[in-house]
Amino acid sequence: MDNYVFGRNNVIELLKEGNRSVSKLILMKNMKDNSKIDQILDLARERGIIFQFLPKEKFTQFKEYSHQGVVAYVSPVKYIDLDEFLLKEKKDYKRVIVTDGVEDPHNFGSIIRTAVCAGYDAIIFPSRRNATVNATVEKSSAGAVNRIDLIMVNSLSSAVDKLKNNDFWVIATDLNAKDNYYDIDYCNMNFAIVMGSEKEGISSTILKNADFKIKIPMLTDFDSLNVANAASIVIYEAVKQTMQKSGNVV
Amino acid sequence: MDNYVFGRNNVIELLKEGNRSVSKLILMKNMKDNSKIDQILDLARERGIIFQFLPKEKFTQFKEYSHQGVVAYVSPVKYIDLDEFLLKEKKDYKRVIVTDGVEDPHNFGSIIRTAVCAGYDAIIFPSRRNATVNATVEKSSAGAVNRIDLIMVNSLSSAVDKLKNNDFWVIATDLNAKDNYYDIDYCNMNFAIVMGSEKEGISSTILKNADFKIKIPMLTDFDSLNVANAASIVIYEAVKQTMQKSGNVV
Repeated sequence: MDNYVFGRNNVIELLKEGNRSVSKLILMKNMKDNSKIDQILDLARERGIIFQFLPKEKFTQFKEYSHQGVVAYVSPVKYIDLDEFLLKEKKDYKRVIVTDGVEDPHNFGSIIRTAVCAGYDAIIFPSRRNATVNATVEKSSAGAVNRIDLIMVNSLSSAVDKLKNNDFWVIATDLNAKDNYYDIDYCNMNFAIVMGSEKEGISSTILKNADFKIKIPMLTDFDSLNVANAASIVIYEAVKQTMQKSGNVV
Repeated sequence: MDNYVFGRNNVIELLKEGNRSVSKLILMKNMKDNSKIDQILDLARERGIIFQFLPKEKFTQFKEYSHQGVVAYVSPVKYIDLDEFLLKEKKDYKRVIVTDGVEDPHNFGSIIRTAVCAGYDAIIFPSRRNATVNATVEKSSAGAVNRIDLIMVNSLSSAVDKLKNNDFWVIATDLNAKDNYYDIDYCNMNFAIVMGSEKEGISSTILKNADFKIKIPMLTDFDSLNVANAASIVIYEAVKQTMQKSGNVV
């Protein structure tokens, strides 16, 4: 379950403050025009937060709370800002995973878990068309969501551009790539591995912008790997290369 | 959902025939002594099939069927026998995955999917303490269960012995292993990769019998990888080594 914030003033404060990540807002249909509602909608648009107008019945589950027709879904974990992450000092190279539309919360949690095991630094994901870090994701990650920087962005392609401008190499996984995932050298650079959505892969703008395109070879004509398994294979190829170069010291 | 076979005579035929894999039998508690029930129990013991006596209420879901207090859960897919698999001709080396107590059907299905993508030949799993191939597994495998030999065995340690006697090298994954998964050479041999249960890892007899013990290095002090992700990493290390040796030709 997500956490919730109820009521007009509370939601306005939440949206103004901007510290906690709001995955969506729901508002009751046919409410009277009201300046607070207008303010909430303006703030939501400004921050790129999804909002929905739902019939009264949908609010029955919240009847014990004074919601005034406004409920915000808030992530139970703390997100950090991409700029803040980029400013962090690290003596080694930074490694991040970008999920471009991984909608299944089990897969998303599972990717976060592998990234933590492999010592990666952050997960970057878009606020739309991707699972947010809710309780299912937290559980599937076996609690790993609290062990890595989680960065939710409104525009994933801007985030990828920003990574590139900050000395990151962008590695996109793509079924049609020519290179295999083990053909590139992951050592001695900051990099971001981009995993696409289960159904549609990586969006074309990001794919076009990537420095490397890699695939995991299929040895049968079978469809494709599960996205979390595919991510694990690539994530650990980088671990392996680095460990082998450094004489296997963890 | 599993498939079912209902009724005493049908279940006797099913157990005698031995072609379709029966994951378990349920019998109604407090039935009168009856030679057919005795015969069913004898056959079940002989074939190592789990059976449970359950109260009448548990049979309500089957009330439209003439079950006579006996229901067999049958896998929707066809299993093959280990001996039959070992006799199959293959010009190349054989590669199998052994799951020793992977109980989560999503993980089990996901492992089967990766094995099919990577061109492995079979999945071997025990009839107890492991998911059987039910509809959840089939779905999680994205249908891959129909693209690989599925071998359910009563004793996994006997199966591992049989593999060893048939020119297979047994590779066990173990958190405490000294070697990393990429330290061994997967080329030019038949091999079986053994994945342990989510909670307890590989059983001690099998671990003792393994030719290689390998681990996936953890770069943080975080617990461990999801078993399906761990399997994918090892499965593809072997693919990669073989492809690199053969000049990258799939």
